[in-house]
Amino acid sequence: MPSATMIEPDLPLAERLFERLRAQSHDGVGMTRDSYGAGEQAAHETMADCARQLGLVVRRDAALNLYLTLPGRRRDLPAVMTGSHLDSVPRGGNYDGAAGVVAGLAVLAGWVRAGATPQRDVVVMGIRAEESAWFPVSYAGSKAAFGLLDAQALQSPRADTGRPLGDHIRDCGGQPELVAAGVPALQATGLDCFVELHIEQGPVLMGAGQPLGVVTGICGSHRYRAARVLGRYAHSGATPRGHRADAVVALAALIDRLQAIWAEMENDGHELTLTFGQVYTDPRQADFSKVPGQVSFSVDIRSRDTATLRLMDEHLLTTARAIATAQGVSFEWGPASGSQPAVMDPALRQALHAAAAGISAGVRDMPSGAGHDSATFANQGVPSAMLFVRNANGSHNPDEAMDMADFAAGARVLGQVLAGRAEVAVAAP
Amino acid sequence: MPSATMIEPDLPLAERLFERLRAQSHDGVGMTRDSYGAGEQAAHETMADCARQLGLVVRRDAALNLYLTLPGRRRDLPAVMTGSHLDSVPRGGNYDGAAGVVAGLAVLAGWVRAGATPQRDVVVMGIRAEESAWFPVSYAGSKAAFGLLDAQALQSPRADTGRPLGDHIRDCGGQPELVAAGVPALQATGLDCFVELHIEQGPVLMGAGQPLGVVTGICGSHRYRAARVLGRYAHSGATPRGHRADAVVALAALIDRLQAIWAEMENDGHELTLTFGQVYTDPRQADFSKVPGQVSFSVDIRSRDTATLRLMDEHLLTTARAIATAQGVSFEWGPASGSQPAVMDPALRQALHAAAAGISAGVRDMPSGAGHDSATFANQGVPSAMLFVRNANGSHNPDEAMDMADFAAGARVLGQVLAGRAEVAVAAP
Repeated sequence: MPSATMIEPDLPLAERLFERLRAQSHDGVGMTRDSYGAGEQAAHETMADCARQLGLVVRRDAALNLYLTLPGRRRDLPAVMTGSHLDSVPRGGNYDGAAGVVAGLAVLAGWVRAGATPQRDVVVMGIRAEESAWFPVSYAGSKAAFGLLDAQALQSPRADTGRPLGDHIRDCGGQPELVAAGVPALQATGLDCFVELHIEQGPVLMGAGQPLGVVTGICGSHRYRAARVLGRYAHSGATPRGHRADAVVALAALIDRLQAIWAEMENDGHELTLTFGQVYTDPRQADFSKVPGQVSFSVDIRSRDTATLRLMDEHLLTTARAIATAQGVSFEWGPASGSQPAVMDPALRQALHAAAAGISAGVRDMPSGAGHDSATFANQGVPSAMLFVRNANGSHNPDEAMDMADFAAGARVLGQVLAGRAEVAVAAP
Repeated sequence: MPSATMIEPDLPLAERLFERLRAQSHDGVGMTRDSYGAGEQAAHETMADCARQLGLVVRRDAALNLYLTLPGRRRDLPAVMTGSHLDSVPRGGNYDGAAGVVAGLAVLAGWVRAGATPQRDVVVMGIRAEESAWFPVSYAGSKAAFGLLDAQALQSPRADTGRPLGDHIRDCGGQPELVAAGVPALQATGLDCFVELHIEQGPVLMGAGQPLGVVTGICGSHRYRAARVLGRYAHSGATPRGHRADAVVALAALIDRLQAIWAEMENDGHELTLTFGQVYTDPRQADFSKVPGQVSFSVDIRSRDTATLRLMDEHLLTTARAIATAQGVSFEWGPASGSQPAVMDPALRQALHAAAAGISAGVRDMPSGAGHDSATFANQGVPSAMLFVRNANGSHNPDEAMDMADFAAGARVLGQVLAGRAEVAVAAP
């Protein structure tokens, strides 16, 4: 009897799925699979079609998360789950999210072809609305699956349409009222584990020359998406230095001081990132010949450690207060948002390492600076893990580039770990 | 025989003119008298109408600058000139520019009513297109009057319409081809002096509790209106500190370092201003969850001293080079623009002080950080001077606020100096 864990994933199927996704979501620049919009809908249909052809059970919950199930011999046991999200940022790449769903289907297709059956249900989940580029909500789809998406979150407007999340869910055929009622489609007790394959979104694996990464923990975040400095507009030539309340100078001081504080915190052993991704003066009022009286900006702090998030937030606010006093400006932070950090399951991490060693694939432990749905699963008490696949040029852009050989290594490792957890058996020939 | 220099300006006429300007150029928020557009055209018509009613000679040059002349007894002598510009920034105030033309007409109206006649022609000039909010050209109107506006400048697009300056001049009835040919309407040898009354655009006179200021010199400028920092977009959570080329962090460092350098230069005796009035990440690409790969910004350096302008520019470029090397970004400066500083005429400054003392009006010497058409006259060799009138809330905004009592003091001082230069005589009763 061949080792059930060594069954080859159906890689030609994976290539066809990536090709179909690319064809249906290319917008002229990159891939656009908008959360609860036409792009994401099409990706879900593609995966559901594929699952039906494989004979899997296709199911959707009230928030339209997709569950593609290979039934186990013991359907009463907690299920083994894999998957990822199927939406993308606007003009993004083809692999961020989708690779995890495609890998899951490739693994199950390999098993079906080999006539292998699992002891437990094995489910590939196509998760909705992970990319917060569309709705200002972290992990909307996976939260909804656990009954954690509240009525207020359903009011959040989509960035492009301005229409609420709940309306978009209804338009796609979902039931926002059930979502708001907190009726869960998933419960931690019903799940043996969640293992998510995802491309790496940073440069670490490229730099290290290794195809795979095992995630140690997922960063949480603390964000001010719409902060402002308010100063006083004044004539650039007629207003002496001491008479100014210059919003841009104040923000520059804040950003500059915080770089030094970030470095000091890293020296003290903290792991975190700090990003001021958007900065803009008011186009209706700012002029090259005016002292700027206002500047808007965003702040994104990320760390695997809640205490680190809190400490950097304190530094941010304290430094801003000192600058405000010294320079006669004020800071308005607007609403704070964010997500909890998550720890990955040691046994699953160990299994991923062992499987990678078994196929001689280079692998390293690494934190995930980006957020992922696995954080929702982990924080609900589901043993969770993530496998990163090497990717060039970062993600969230059309140039993201994953080598199919690296994807194949990732899918093999994923398949072995799922097979082990699900106790896959192959019928004797 | 009453002293000709003590003839009262026609202040009720001034009030009516301000009222008419306000009514015709209010845009719902502030005053908009667009350069070579409907707003500026209407202001010129208002002043020409008033001049005709006073019996003045009304003339326009190829660039549509307006000349309102009270002929002298000796028309061959160099003329005495006053005036200012009649355009405004978008949603500006009612006094920036217009006050100088209104004051000139109020002075001449007073003389006409008193039957006073000057030895020399006295001309009130309504200057075109001083506000570079519309065209990226300094002093377009006064330069054109001296034949200094070249064909390239006539190609400059207006910020809102995108159409070239030359086309706008033609639309208003002017002759851009004569302007481009450099045919001068004014020559330094034909002018005895130019004296411009203007509201102060900064807070100095308000702070000092004085209604009037005599300008010592007009700042020149050195500008980069469209500079950029280019870094590399990256995932905010997945990109460690050492792997970033963050355009916003680099710009913040530049702005922050330059504040310290500005302070040091002032300690060394330099007078200057430095302003980063516009700063903006790319709205199509920047995101709160991305390391910013690009940020645009403007720089405006002003000083009465060319060497100071040059020194700050060197500091700017040197500091940016060091930051670029350290942080792996690059700076693109785009085209540089600017204007020459100008020195005001000592005899005219002395005459303005004496006249203010004669009516017991508080007055102080002060530089002009803002640019003014008087700089063009001074740099063409015309003895030139400026009289600032106290004004609250700065200029270039709807809240600019000049007290009519301060304007009256300014108009009296202006009238006395013009009367002295033009040798005004009053007929015996």
